[in-house]
Amino acid sequence: MKIALLAGDGIGSEIVAQAERVLRFFIEEGQKIEIEPGLLGGCAVDACGEPFPPATQQLAADADALLLGAVGGPRYDLLPREKRPEQGLLSIRKALNLFANFRPVMLFPELANASTLKAEVVSGLDILIVRELTGDIYFGQPRGIEIREGQRFGFNTMIYSESEIARIAHVAFQAARRRNGRLCSIDKMNVLECTQLWRDVVIETAEIYPDVTLSHMLVDNAAMQLVRDPKQFDVMVTGNIFGDILSDEASMLTGSIGMLPSASLDENNKGLYEPIHGSAPDIADKNIANPLATILSVAMMMRYSFSEEQLAVRIERAVRQVLAEGYRTADIFETGMRKVSTTEMGDAVLSYL
Amino acid sequence: MKIALLAGDGIGSEIVAQAERVLRFFIEEGQKIEIEPGLLGGCAVDACGEPFPPATQQLAADADALLLGAVGGPRYDLLPREKRPEQGLLSIRKALNLFANFRPVMLFPELANASTLKAEVVSGLDILIVRELTGDIYFGQPRGIEIREGQRFGFNTMIYSESEIARIAHVAFQAARRRNGRLCSIDKMNVLECTQLWRDVVIETAEIYPDVTLSHMLVDNAAMQLVRDPKQFDVMVTGNIFGDILSDEASMLTGSIGMLPSASLDENNKGLYEPIHGSAPDIADKNIANPLATILSVAMMMRYSFSEEQLAVRIERAVRQVLAEGYRTADIFETGMRKVSTTEMGDAVLSYL
Ligand SMILES: CC(C)[C@H](C(=O)O)[C@@H](O)C(=O)O
Ligand SMILES: CC(C)[C@H](C(=O)O)[C@@H](O)C(=O)O
Repeated sequence: MKIALLAGDGIGSEIVAQAERVLRFFIEEGQKIEIEPGLLGGCAVDACGEPFPPATQQLAADADALLLGAVGGPRYDLLPREKRPEQGLLSIRKALNLFANFRPVMLFPELANASTLKAEVVSGLDILIVRELTGDIYFGQPRGIEIREGQRFGFNTMIYSESEIARIAHVAFQAARRRNGRLCSIDKMNVLECTQLWRDVVIETAEIYPDVTLSHMLVDNAAMQLVRDPKQFDVMVTGNIFGDILSDEASMLTGSIGMLPSASLDENNKGLYEPIHGSAPDIADKNIANPLATILSVAMMMRYSFSEEQLAVRIERAVRQVLAEGYRTADIFETGMRKVSTTEMGDAVLSYL
Repeated sequence: MKIALLAGDGIGSEIVAQAERVLRFFIEEGQKIEIEPGLLGGCAVDACGEPFPPATQQLAADADALLLGAVGGPRYDLLPREKRPEQGLLSIRKALNLFANFRPVMLFPELANASTLKAEVVSGLDILIVRELTGDIYFGQPRGIEIREGQRFGFNTMIYSESEIARIAHVAFQAARRRNGRLCSIDKMNVLECTQLWRDVVIETAEIYPDVTLSHMLVDNAAMQLVRDPKQFDVMVTGNIFGDILSDEASMLTGSIGMLPSASLDENNKGLYEPIHGSAPDIADKNIANPLATILSVAMMMRYSFSEEQLAVRIERAVRQVLAEGYRTADIFETGMRKVSTTEMGDAVLSYL
């Protein structure tokens, strides 16, 4: 298993360091894991002047899987667009063809209180959001800011081909099959032709998955329904921009985004794994960030890229035990629990592993 | 006051009928109100073959304000795009240049339990969402579904000019000034050039509103923050598609979307007023729909289009009294309250007026 570690910016290096301890523990057990660090995002801009430099491109091409902390920070917001850390993330997704973004949204029973929603609305919550990650308005051409008839116009292009839609639809149907067999596809077909095609192709793809129950929902209604009754969903599939918005909304339903991992996969299950939270520059270098989402991202990596279900389950079980024992970083702390630092949380996970 | 009544589809005629009683009550009091009914949406398709027929175009042009119930229904989903009820709504917005959509999101203390969020998170919630309504990807060209190199592509164009952005920004700054002086502008400037221009122009416009505190938030983060801590917001301003998603999410925080009105205004405060909820075909013709959002839309009409603050306040006060007395339609019913029908709710509001 050739694994690239891209710590990124802000709290990235602290949380990835704890996840790396998990990998090194597996190496000591005899797993054939090779670890190689690399630069992505703001740290790469600082070191090489670009957010996804050639060395990282090579590293990414050679690796079987990549673990990313987080990128970005206010320091970089004034750079020209192509030099911003986010561009590094978008470029690596595109370069590696990581079109399938999996974002499981689940409520850990131990953290049920953290949600701003009433317990009965979210207890047992377990949704999988499948977001298309290499198309849509994120990458569509033409795009830009131009002066026409004396004033500026800003424009972007939302675009999907039927093959792009079918590809992510297959991934989502197969994921639904492995779960509770229900797939809800999200679009805005009443206004956008692009998403009318999305709906048409999802319906066509459904023919070979008669065992999966397919439904459709408009994106505005989906944003409502996630608040009204999130447990109605099993798997949701949607395009890049709607997926960006809805998956962030959904993850906040748990109240503990410091706990949620994600995977971005290509056709062959090569993947980039990262916590869904950001680089949190305000709490960087204080040893207080929550490393569990990053550690759980390693579990997803073991499952999806390496088919090492056993290793995945062991990581997930260790995290659950740590929570059950009351270990809490500041972001998920409640009175009566043991407040621990980033490294102490890593210690605890290692001890249960 | 020349007011057009567009009942629309589903529950539309039932809820608009109760709002019309409020208008007729004002007429009896001596207010110079003229009421003219018209067809928009599916009912117009049924009667004239198009969702925004010429007669309604004329009516809309002549009116000072319009009250709409709701449009749409599954019956119309298979019609070609330009014949669907939603197209009627989009066309009337565009034809009348109703670029400023006001969506107040407030929690009625009497209905605090209806929210799926914990009481402390939403009690006292009072946000105003200002959504641009005649631009963005809703109307951008080119758009369509085309075959290129043997496969279908669906595409739409997100586009804003600086004058469109400045116009809605002014409206939002002025609204913030009348409220708590805080404006949060929502964009996705880290990915979309169109919304980079949005952010630039909002910042430029801010110069003449030094008394308003301006902040910016990415749309994915905004979708999160609405769940995490909605009370952090005073006024939010955003483009058409993000506004569609975020305002629906925000309205559901109250748990009672049957209560929320909206206004869509042009440069001269001519406006279209409508409840934010849909046409609810499943409960149509049962006399159980909640007419309060439509009645509260009349209050907004009195305030914004006719500067009749007194009449607006009287309507709002009557609605609050009705709630305080325990009158509840089925959608907001709780045990211990009086369950009433659509018409009985209208009776109750009239009696308090
Ligand atoms: C950082 C940003 C470009 C990115 C996105 O919009 O995809 C992020 O929000 C995410 O969801 O991974
Ligand atoms: C019906 C639809 C076209 C409309 C929109 O998307 O604007 C609706 O969702 C709304 O928010 O008023």
